[in-house]
Amino acid sequence: MKKVVKFGGSSLASARQFKKVGEIIWSDKSRRYVVPSAPGKRNDKDEKVTDLLYQCYDAASQGRSYKKILEKIKNRYNDIIDGLGLDLNLDHEFQRIEENFVAAVGRDYAGSRGEYLNGLVMACYLNYEFIDAAEVIFFDDNGNLEAEYTDHELSERLANVERAVIPGFYGAKHDGTIKTFSRGGSDVTGSIVAKAIHADMYENWTDVSGMLVTDPRIVENPEVIETVTYKELRELAYMGASVLHEDAIFPVRKEGIPINIRNTNRPEDKGTLIVESTCRKPRHTITGIAGKKGFCSINIEKAMMNSEVGFGRRVLSVFEQYGINFEHMPSGIDTMTIYVHQSEFEDYEQSVIAGIHRAVEPDTLEMESDLALLAVVGRGMRSARGTAGRIFSALAHARVNVKMIDQGSSEWNIIIGVKNDDFETAIKAIYDIFVTAEL
Amino acid sequence: MKKVVKFGGSSLASARQFKKVGEIIWSDKSRRYVVPSAPGKRNDKDEKVTDLLYQCYDAASQGRSYKKILEKIKNRYNDIIDGLGLDLNLDHEFQRIEENFVAAVGRDYAGSRGEYLNGLVMACYLNYEFIDAAEVIFFDDNGNLEAEYTDHELSERLANVERAVIPGFYGAKHDGTIKTFSRGGSDVTGSIVAKAIHADMYENWTDVSGMLVTDPRIVENPEVIETVTYKELRELAYMGASVLHEDAIFPVRKEGIPINIRNTNRPEDKGTLIVESTCRKPRHTITGIAGKKGFCSINIEKAMMNSEVGFGRRVLSVFEQYGINFEHMPSGIDTMTIYVHQSEFEDYEQSVIAGIHRAVEPDTLEMESDLALLAVVGRGMRSARGTAGRIFSALAHARVNVKMIDQGSSEWNIIIGVKNDDFETAIKAIYDIFVTAEL
Repeated sequence: MKKVVKFGGSSLASARQFKKVGEIIWSDKSRRYVVPSAPGKRNDKDEKVTDLLYQCYDAASQGRSYKKILEKIKNRYNDIIDGLGLDLNLDHEFQRIEENFVAAVGRDYAGSRGEYLNGLVMACYLNYEFIDAAEVIFFDDNGNLEAEYTDHELSERLANVERAVIPGFYGAKHDGTIKTFSRGGSDVTGSIVAKAIHADMYENWTDVSGMLVTDPRIVENPEVIETVTYKELRELAYMGASVLHEDAIFPVRKEGIPINIRNTNRPEDKGTLIVESTCRKPRHTITGIAGKKGFCSINIEKAMMNSEVGFGRRVLSVFEQYGINFEHMPSGIDTMTIYVHQSEFEDYEQSVIAGIHRAVEPDTLEMESDLALLAVVGRGMRSARGTAGRIFSALAHARVNVKMIDQGSSEWNIIIGVKNDDFETAIKAIYDIFVTAEL
Repeated sequence: MKKVVKFGGSSLASARQFKKVGEIIWSDKSRRYVVPSAPGKRNDKDEKVTDLLYQCYDAASQGRSYKKILEKIKNRYNDIIDGLGLDLNLDHEFQRIEENFVAAVGRDYAGSRGEYLNGLVMACYLNYEFIDAAEVIFFDDNGNLEAEYTDHELSERLANVERAVIPGFYGAKHDGTIKTFSRGGSDVTGSIVAKAIHADMYENWTDVSGMLVTDPRIVENPEVIETVTYKELRELAYMGASVLHEDAIFPVRKEGIPINIRNTNRPEDKGTLIVESTCRKPRHTITGIAGKKGFCSINIEKAMMNSEVGFGRRVLSVFEQYGINFEHMPSGIDTMTIYVHQSEFEDYEQSVIAGIHRAVEPDTLEMESDLALLAVVGRGMRSARGTAGRIFSALAHARVNVKMIDQGSSEWNIIIGVKNDDFETAIKAIYDIFVTAEL
């Protein structure tokens, strides 16, 4: 049994948090590969080490005063080292970092040092081998992950290593230049490591007890999702539910390795299990509700539209020409509606409209802005007849006007368009009918 | 006040029916322009004169025996003439027709003679002027209606004609060759005449008291729709509700002339009024339900599909390449479903699948056949919150599995995909919840 365990910044923000992490790791011998983030915030007013590093680097590389910030960073690590009673001195490491900052070797280098140093501390604390991510995770000259090469190198490197700490968030190009993933990229590192060692489980430890059914800013104290499939997760994540870095899914998904989202502060909670597929009945008909504001719709009418082969393709070509992704395209017989992100669309609005007029000569073309899209997602919806009825009855009862409905053959995802103003009301109504009412 | 009145074949099948028509026309002095069809069936086992004409022509032009069929046709007209006590002899007309049949002047000529002769009878009976459609309705060499030229010629010809009969269904090319519309084309003639004279109303007299809320083969004795907009009609007609010839809408729609569907056998019924727009509240939330069987869906999944600009366009291009119209394209985040007519798709199935694989490299591609689409249409849906809830609750209650939902910004049309087997049940359930329950 082999598990990869990744810990987020808040799980490693202080010696106290490190001790919790240690207990978690030591309580299960299969937790053999550890991917740490950089120390995060200890409280609301605190700063993340990674942010301090960027500030420090910018100041040093521009010849401004940076010592004070560097001191803050050093103190963060020394507090942890002292709190854990470790026999570890990072002075030499900090000296090299300072030199590199002044030499302006790159912002990615700066951003990566939080994980690097935390990895050293973690390896010392656990008495695990430290493996620098720069030696096992590779990017090409354009800065794209070399997935296959990395997988090969990493699995070879770890083949004879029983227990190791590999810092998250970064890797290197072939010339040795440090390159980071985008923010939250330690999730990706964990996933890559899990794939390389064919882990049985990828545990992602954070400060919440799993993925929530919906946004806690909208519904007070929403339930935790017990089990979610990759597909469900992807749909919910696309619509705004944030759990993992988007790119963290694909490496483990390919291998069918489940991900377990856990809470470092409540290790007794089972968290959320993310799986390829499962026979487990979901607790509720729906798995989750997510959504985003800021869409607009372009509504095209043309008599006999439906008998023009190529009509839809020509309309979409216009959006493509301006690099605009369309989100959904519900259609009637002589009507077609295109949903796009308002922010992507606004700059090209008039060009797109002119383009559509040229392309298909519509009878009318109308736009509506300030729309929100909701995704109601759940593998349980497939077998539960009446889901759509419950959703739309609940929305009607909550006096929400449904602007758009889109449900394809997947049958486990209904997309609903509402006005921005109705967004929160709609989410609450759907949560209540499926979760509160089913409890 | 000027009305164009078109009478269908069943309204003119016998002298008895002609008398009803006469009463209708004489009861309203504004019914000044009459467009007759050919005599239709007098009972279930009867033959339509137009069908007899085609049979007769085919026999005559191929040198087979045709006299017996011609005699049948002559008898039909003579029965009407005698029954009305008219002083009219069509022998000369029939002689010319016979000569032309033997000379094989064209099947369209044959098909048009039913209306032509019925027009002569009607003009004599009403004492209206007879105007041969061949002199006022024009087709180009490719057989397409010359709409503008026809409009101009027709309005000039009718400018000083107080009352006239213009036979339906045909016109002529510039060389005099007779050309017909497709079956049911007398509706188109009526519409063209209404447009040309700027009629206040186009009355279309038939054997039903208007357009029905849904298919009487599925729901017993469904209600008649009082008022329907052109747009609603178009959506319902596309989905299988048959009332008028499709091309009959556009000429009058352009001019904003309302169409009134009336029943020759129940002239006291108000029938259905087809209008551009109306403030009239519809009697029910929905105006009509129509649907068709025989669709199939192609369900495409691909991780991160949504971030590929041009994905949808590329998929649709494949269908376009094979001349296949897509009906609807509901989508999730990483899923996209394309609904097409099974009959159009079957021949190219494997080519299209291969094309999609080449175009977008989907993770999975699944198909489902034997699906039906329903359109629930109604301008009243726009202001009635909860329509979707009622529809889907009713379907759930009827144990219908909803395969697809598509509602765009028009908000007065919801398209629903179900299995062919659930089609009738679904229509009944929706009819009951909106019509039976609202009575």
